[in-house]
Amino acid sequence: MFDCIAIIGVGLIGGSVALAAKKNRLCKEIVGSGRNESELQQAVQLGVIDRYEMDVGEAVKEADLILIAVPLSAFSDVFRQIKGKYRNGAIITDAGSAKASVVKDAQTVFGTLPAGFVPGHPIAGTEKSGVQAAFAELFESRCTIITPLASSASEAVTALTAFWQGCGASVVNMEVAHHDEVLAATSHLPHVLAYALVDSLAQMHERVEIFRYAAGGFRDFTRIASSSPMMWRDICMANKEAVLDVLEQFKKQLELVSQAIADNDANELEAIFCRAKKARDEHVVI
Amino acid sequence: MFDCIAIIGVGLIGGSVALAAKKNRLCKEIVGSGRNESELQQAVQLGVIDRYEMDVGEAVKEADLILIAVPLSAFSDVFRQIKGKYRNGAIITDAGSAKASVVKDAQTVFGTLPAGFVPGHPIAGTEKSGVQAAFAELFESRCTIITPLASSASEAVTALTAFWQGCGASVVNMEVAHHDEVLAATSHLPHVLAYALVDSLAQMHERVEIFRYAAGGFRDFTRIASSSPMMWRDICMANKEAVLDVLEQFKKQLELVSQAIADNDANELEAIFCRAKKARDEHVVI
Repeated sequence: MFDCIAIIGVGLIGGSVALAAKKNRLCKEIVGSGRNESELQQAVQLGVIDRYEMDVGEAVKEADLILIAVPLSAFSDVFRQIKGKYRNGAIITDAGSAKASVVKDAQTVFGTLPAGFVPGHPIAGTEKSGVQAAFAELFESRCTIITPLASSASEAVTALTAFWQGCGASVVNMEVAHHDEVLAATSHLPHVLAYALVDSLAQMHERVEIFRYAAGGFRDFTRIASSSPMMWRDICMANKEAVLDVLEQFKKQLELVSQAIADNDANELEAIFCRAKKARDEHVVI
Repeated sequence: MFDCIAIIGVGLIGGSVALAAKKNRLCKEIVGSGRNESELQQAVQLGVIDRYEMDVGEAVKEADLILIAVPLSAFSDVFRQIKGKYRNGAIITDAGSAKASVVKDAQTVFGTLPAGFVPGHPIAGTEKSGVQAAFAELFESRCTIITPLASSASEAVTALTAFWQGCGASVVNMEVAHHDEVLAATSHLPHVLAYALVDSLAQMHERVEIFRYAAGGFRDFTRIASSSPMMWRDICMANKEAVLDVLEQFKKQLELVSQAIADNDANELEAIFCRAKKARDEHVVI
């Protein structure tokens, strides 16, 4: 489908896109780029990418699809490095977990947004990082949200949609602000809570060896606290307003629970727990 | 090892103890009891227990091990029903998630605590409930905390320890108050947070279909919000002080995170996330 895909940032997500594209025969060649040459060498050795260029501008010059999968704080740099270097008609997309900040960075660098620019976000991942954690099936039966802009060419949107579908994902179109609100709730807030919980318990751990008695539920609940701290720092900063909004809502809810416990209000507590169980059992596919 | 085990409350935990005892040949006969006759019939049909008695006093009269695995709010009733009915020398233990409330209920009912009374808590479970979710391997490679009291006979402690080890668990002795503090942190608090999060998002869900875009991390993070609301209501009430304590600590930690995001303090945010990742990677066995 594509002659050449350039992947900027060949980590868990970038590497998995490369493997999915190869597995599903969606391109002829994959060029990687990034800051860390030894990781790019490893990506070549693992067969994830065909070759790499340390110069991002060089990496994208032949590409008809450019996927940026770097931490959100590095997008400005990447945009500056590809500006004026990519082919006319190339599709530029990304895998950033927040979309308004990516669009803002692109606007600042490009001025007029390229017609091929279609932001995206595959809703998939694990708590692991790095190309060695990448696998071709990461996007299968998952959802990729794309947020086409007023400036996006419809051919670019169509081709990007087909690409993600080719990787096994279902594709949903969404407004940028809506994406950021939804992800703040379902992804960014849970990560913040998991980090805050584990850090809070780590301080208790100095007194009592609590982690020793953590059972399966705790392991699952805190798995996401093993995710990349830098990546999640960037996400919280980039999606600051939406994250603070859902944090406020959560804190109010937690206050209701605390108050019900403090007041021995068993009925209120059971009502909250029942609503939550019902919502999860109904809406979250296991 | 035991001639007859009586299990009061044949749900996920009680049923799994029965299956583990059978699988590991730790007893000759298992008698079940509980409030719901159709569930007890199902337990017999599934081969989990050998027979049942609706009258708890009748169920325990031949037993040399009595395991109480009912919601914490039902312990007083069960103690009243077995008082004067159990054999001299019978071991009385339980699987309650909080221990001070169980001991207090026993003291109220029995006056002088029976020498065979050794409270316990297997640190194992799933988000599922009911005997149909029970399985013999639930306790393998898990930890069972027992909290022997000043009144507990050492033979009872030894026999109970051997029983849990026979079920595949490692056994740890702990003070009642210490148990309740540790479990508040590693189990009760995470459940409260998961319930509060899902209920908070369920209210947003009326505006935007957020649950549709929940990925693997969210599913793991919120799995425990599918646990029994009544059971967790009871646990929060029974372990009120310890739960409120860890909730306060968590809220302070969450406030630090919120403030760092609001202040664009990337360094502070990364420091918290790094500490949490380090603590989880070091201490929590995956």
